[in-house]
Amino acid sequence: MGGLTYRDAGVDIDKKEQVLAGIGSLVKATYSDRVLHEHGAFGGLFDGRFTEMENPILVATNDGVGTKVRMGIRTGRTRLLGHDIVNHCVDDILVQGAEPLFFLDYFASSYLDPAQLKEVVTGLAEACKAVGAALLGGETAEMPGVYAKGEGDIVGFLVGLVDRAKLWPRGVAAGDALVGIRSDGLHTNGYSLVNRIVDDQKPDLEADPGGLGESLADALCRPHRSYLDAIRGLRDEVDIHALAHITGGGFQGNLPRVLPEGLGAVVDRATWKPNPVFDWLLAAGGIDREEAYRVFNMGCGLVVVLPADQAQKAVEVLGASGNEAWVMGQVVEKAGIQLDG
Amino acid sequence: MGGLTYRDAGVDIDKKEQVLAGIGSLVKATYSDRVLHEHGAFGGLFDGRFTEMENPILVATNDGVGTKVRMGIRTGRTRLLGHDIVNHCVDDILVQGAEPLFFLDYFASSYLDPAQLKEVVTGLAEACKAVGAALLGGETAEMPGVYAKGEGDIVGFLVGLVDRAKLWPRGVAAGDALVGIRSDGLHTNGYSLVNRIVDDQKPDLEADPGGLGESLADALCRPHRSYLDAIRGLRDEVDIHALAHITGGGFQGNLPRVLPEGLGAVVDRATWKPNPVFDWLLAAGGIDREEAYRVFNMGCGLVVVLPADQAQKAVEVLGASGNEAWVMGQVVEKAGIQLDG
Repeated sequence: MGGLTYRDAGVDIDKKEQVLAGIGSLVKATYSDRVLHEHGAFGGLFDGRFTEMENPILVATNDGVGTKVRMGIRTGRTRLLGHDIVNHCVDDILVQGAEPLFFLDYFASSYLDPAQLKEVVTGLAEACKAVGAALLGGETAEMPGVYAKGEGDIVGFLVGLVDRAKLWPRGVAAGDALVGIRSDGLHTNGYSLVNRIVDDQKPDLEADPGGLGESLADALCRPHRSYLDAIRGLRDEVDIHALAHITGGGFQGNLPRVLPEGLGAVVDRATWKPNPVFDWLLAAGGIDREEAYRVFNMGCGLVVVLPADQAQKAVEVLGASGNEAWVMGQVVEKAGIQLDG
Repeated sequence: MGGLTYRDAGVDIDKKEQVLAGIGSLVKATYSDRVLHEHGAFGGLFDGRFTEMENPILVATNDGVGTKVRMGIRTGRTRLLGHDIVNHCVDDILVQGAEPLFFLDYFASSYLDPAQLKEVVTGLAEACKAVGAALLGGETAEMPGVYAKGEGDIVGFLVGLVDRAKLWPRGVAAGDALVGIRSDGLHTNGYSLVNRIVDDQKPDLEADPGGLGESLADALCRPHRSYLDAIRGLRDEVDIHALAHITGGGFQGNLPRVLPEGLGAVVDRATWKPNPVFDWLLAAGGIDREEAYRVFNMGCGLVVVLPADQAQKAVEVLGASGNEAWVMGQVVEKAGIQLDG
């Protein structure tokens, strides 16, 4: 056994199996009775009978947390990254009207730290349980040379279900109102810019730089918010035409995706104030305000499009369930997204 | 506009959209009539009516190509990495008996090279089309600081379908035969070790080091093989009890996963010769033979478990469809995997 071994090359199969064994109960806590427990499963098994719907549609999405992973790792808040990726995916299928069925994760890093992996999977399992998604599978990889030292990436895959008749968007028309719902900060977008600012300025991440009411690390690592409960409570009360998930690209990048050809929208930025963390970022980074609206959600993570005469009711219903919401604009005949205020 | 921009931080949103627009037709060529084309889709939509089956089971898996991605990038064979990840996932659900439905990919790198991205997605689309999977979605990320310079990662997510009555493994018993099917080389396993050897020894990758009949780069980048067609042609001819996908961990790591509690297997390594690329690796790396069987597939990428009296027929059916196959061992009463020869 004097030759080169896999462990010499930086990969320790035993360590990985040991860690994974320790998190099995967390994962199993997310299972519904639709998850099959079969011996010898290389893949996760999920009951595919959706007979309660006339025309069941599977909605699939995948994404990473982007360079927010660096912020989570450097501040020791890796558990929150698990919440980030689950909730990001949940919101991406929610805009089609879909409820989560099952989630799979991928976590890779230059070096597999058992404690870190446990934190990530704990966060994933907590978030999956909260939204009713089974954490059906996952893969972990130790990739020396591919990831920069101490860095890693987290990727999520989510499959959900919606009845075809309830797919969004549907029926969006000029004159519809836009109702914004407050974000929990940056969610998972714009972190290459944030990391650059933090690298350059080296602020004390564990202190409040002023006006945040929390440490900078807490503000910057606050997880992507799931809007599932908010929309579950709203969808039977008003006639939702569409939802837009405000991620990378901001309003200009995401609102047009749910508008019919030829229509546009006007957003009045005077109707809300961005969360304090955005004030800090713009000041610290010297970021132009228009650029900021193209990169960050600026305080609004989800836009509800609905008939104008139901907008106030939507604001009230959302407010009653603890979601800060406000009428922020409307759909117009002129294509393009116009940001006023 | 004098402030810090997203582009300054290393992320160019316009470039990404431009590249993605150019590969749309490749992706659409993989669509079946089960894929829905809806405006405003943040997620991929797939018809979820599986009424032709009594008890449809969705089988989901995800994985990366591991550090093979380094080999593909350094030798300019990134298109093959697309084949690698699709086929790896296909084999992972095939062992449960499932046929592919849809695939999603994630490609991230330190710098988004449009030509490289196009090659990767072309490979993904080619491989998806070959196995009948819709390339339903994907995500691309440029992550400066997370990936080492010039490096990247490719992750795949596949959902397939199987009728519950046809799930494997089923009926594995002592006395069953093991039939091996030839691999196309290393597939996607053991590349941290391979990269270490190549980094240390710096062989001319574009030359044949002797005995390969092809360049070292061609041998080391040969894609993971899909066994879907081989098994489609075999499953109605013999009574398959189980399939084992031989990936990282080799026979010892993968065969036990499909054996009932308490049973083991004996594999006679004298029944086949590893592909020449393994001879080169073991010699160049001074790798111990037993370690090699724990890391690599050593020439056998899939093991079929079936009644002993049908083993010869399986070898013949597989041979007739162009798959080199041989009887390699049997299931035994004693737990554990014994490697003879």
